[in-house]
Amino acid sequence: MKTQHHPLVTATATAADFLIASRQCEIRNLEYFLQMGRLVQSVGNLVHGLQRERGATNLFLGSGCQRFAGERALVLKQNDQLASTFRQALADIQHDLTDHPVSSSLLGHIASALHCLDQLPGLRRRVADRSANVKEATDWFCDTIHQLITVVFEAAETVAEPSIAGLLVAMVHVMNGKEYCGQERAAGSAGFSSGQFDNALSRRIMHLVEAQERCFEVFVNFAHEESLGLWRTLCAHPRELDIERMRQKAMSVGRYKSLDEGLADQWFNLMTERMDDLKRIEDAIENAFHHRCVERYTEARQSLAHQESLLVSLEQRSAPATPLLVVCDNGVDARAVGALAGDGVGQQAGRSIFDLVQEQTRRLRQMSEELQSAKDALEDRRTQEKAVLMLMEHRNISNDEAHRLLRKLAMDQGKRLPEMARALMSMSAVIGH
Amino acid sequence: MKTQHHPLVTATATAADFLIASRQCEIRNLEYFLQMGRLVQSVGNLVHGLQRERGATNLFLGSGCQRFAGERALVLKQNDQLASTFRQALADIQHDLTDHPVSSSLLGHIASALHCLDQLPGLRRRVADRSANVKEATDWFCDTIHQLITVVFEAAETVAEPSIAGLLVAMVHVMNGKEYCGQERAAGSAGFSSGQFDNALSRRIMHLVEAQERCFEVFVNFAHEESLGLWRTLCAHPRELDIERMRQKAMSVGRYKSLDEGLADQWFNLMTERMDDLKRIEDAIENAFHHRCVERYTEARQSLAHQESLLVSLEQRSAPATPLLVVCDNGVDARAVGALAGDGVGQQAGRSIFDLVQEQTRRLRQMSEELQSAKDALEDRRTQEKAVLMLMEHRNISNDEAHRLLRKLAMDQGKRLPEMARALMSMSAVIGH
Repeated sequence: MKTQHHPLVTATATAADFLIASRQCEIRNLEYFLQMGRLVQSVGNLVHGLQRERGATNLFLGSGCQRFAGERALVLKQNDQLASTFRQALADIQHDLTDHPVSSSLLGHIASALHCLDQLPGLRRRVADRSANVKEATDWFCDTIHQLITVVFEAAETVAEPSIAGLLVAMVHVMNGKEYCGQERAAGSAGFSSGQFDNALSRRIMHLVEAQERCFEVFVNFAHEESLGLWRTLCAHPRELDIERMRQKAMSVGRYKSLDEGLADQWFNLMTERMDDLKRIEDAIENAFHHRCVERYTEARQSLAHQESLLVSLEQRSAPATPLLVVCDNGVDARAVGALAGDGVGQQAGRSIFDLVQEQTRRLRQMSEELQSAKDALEDRRTQEKAVLMLMEHRNISNDEAHRLLRKLAMDQGKRLPEMARALMSMSAVIGH
Repeated sequence: MKTQHHPLVTATATAADFLIASRQCEIRNLEYFLQMGRLVQSVGNLVHGLQRERGATNLFLGSGCQRFAGERALVLKQNDQLASTFRQALADIQHDLTDHPVSSSLLGHIASALHCLDQLPGLRRRVADRSANVKEATDWFCDTIHQLITVVFEAAETVAEPSIAGLLVAMVHVMNGKEYCGQERAAGSAGFSSGQFDNALSRRIMHLVEAQERCFEVFVNFAHEESLGLWRTLCAHPRELDIERMRQKAMSVGRYKSLDEGLADQWFNLMTERMDDLKRIEDAIENAFHHRCVERYTEARQSLAHQESLLVSLEQRSAPATPLLVVCDNGVDARAVGALAGDGVGQQAGRSIFDLVQEQTRRLRQMSEELQSAKDALEDRRTQEKAVLMLMEHRNISNDEAHRLLRKLAMDQGKRLPEMARALMSMSAVIGH
């Protein structure tokens, strides 16, 4: 898969060399994302497995280690396999990632994710001998899943091809939405199995429902047709109405009434089905991502080969070629300047190299414009996370409370959430922290 | 200068491998910018030389090829040397740029700049035999200089280290401001030597003065102490008052009065001195840039060596190490989760690897926050250029007119220029073009 060095590379740097290098750089990036696709897939599978293990672990601990031991053992075994596939995918691109380091931030977050995973055997031992409680186990799973999703987020930030970037933005937002869904499953299970929801738990469910909705809104903006179809099917599923009814029950029950404990199993199963459907959407995106990478890679290779043969024939036709037209990226009229190139010699060569260089500039400009909305979506998400982190640190409040505060500030000031987050961050830069 | 592969790289990917890879990635970037410094320097020198050649060429053609032939010949010779230094700097990093392609856009713009430079011999021939007129020659110089500055702009976009990015943002804006100053010198020379300024010429001078001011405002925001000192000295120089007086004269003269033609030489000399002072500011920034790269590179190497020896000693102390603490980037309380790691074995190793990974995450997060203002400044500039280009294409107007229209729209709607440009671009995305 390695891109070969172009034979034109010589001691003196020429326009043709750098034109080819620019194309090769695009191809190199696509190669890298072909590999990255496997990593993203293994992250998605591992996250899904860890969400199942979190559920099974909570049920196991919640039942006083009486029930779900068999289910849990099965999930643990499957997850060992998924973790090993993830590590293998990393090992396969490790050489590439360290040889052509794309982003120190991506590499740092991979280190964090691996470090989290290294804790898993210890946690499982402590769950088995009941020295870890539900909250501790849940916190570990939430943190590790967050780290894994962040790896995909950081990978998305390094994409330069608009349609591929859009798919990764869709992917990250489904992953995040599904994780909020998993946390809602856990919070609801705790409430239904204890038979009541206190204020804090109701508020947490409300927060998780809103957070899911925001993620899926962004997903819908970037989804491709197939995943959008799956999403509409999911939304129209009768189960969604059942979930909505149970949510209403959870919110309205108050602390003095109590609920049928049998609802806990029903809730857990409904939410699990929902998460499995979301996983199918992820798989569809992953599939589209892979095909898009292959497609773009093939196109880019063909286009490079075409340019190389064009350049070779230009060189043969008019050596020593002194191309005669200039690139008018700053808007000087191309024809006016082109009039300079009037002496005939090498004009054909000049016109063609001119065309090639200008076409590349135009293509890259267009790609950068199309990339903007994907970048904005990632930037919005990053700014919100930063703002939440800042509020947590400044006010010494929890993640949930910081999210709620940010939402309240935005509503009070009539701003969109990302705007409010940006305003907070710029204020904090002025105030200092 | 090549970063050695870390000896820890093994068949299985570990947190330590990727922690080291993340550090190496930063070092790799700094190495690249140490090389890039030479390229930026050679671009600055070549742009200055081309600005001198543009001036000498205009004076030569303007005098009907009677005067300035000797001065021009000298500048041509010096510029051949500067162009060759630029090509040499490119050849020296060509291998690096194509082997570790940082940005296809940077490579594409290098191709454009080289392609422009290839036209220089042809243009010079046409100036010598008087088959090129002042406008054609000026357009070529403006376009080529714009392409060269764009190379520095694109290089600035690839920086990940905040203080280095800030210096390049300052550099790009001085370069741009100096180029507007050069264009003002040419426009003023045309007016003073013809003895009158028509409306179009007055408006052009007004546009160029405003464009300079905007560039220097951004420069001041990112400048380091020394270049800021030089800038203040420049602003306080008596020459600035002389320039201001001549500008007023040019604006107010109207088409029916005429001016002493002797003013042309005075204007040209004043503006040339101003440009030479601006070049000194560029040199000071370049110098600071180089020192900052060396400093950061040395720090990063030391820090990597320190981490490597730490990791080796951790491995020796507690093999097989299963680090026990998790990274709590998403705000889960570190101590609460840390309580999980209670079984003693390898705790020291756990705590240390935990510290290292967490420190790297925190460092990268802080760098990315600090980098934001530099990125915003580049993004603002890019959006304005895109908006100007769009207005030119849609309305079929000149670069000057598009700038003026954008400024007028911003003023009418009480928006900052970058905001107005962003609003225009997002509208154009909706309308389609």
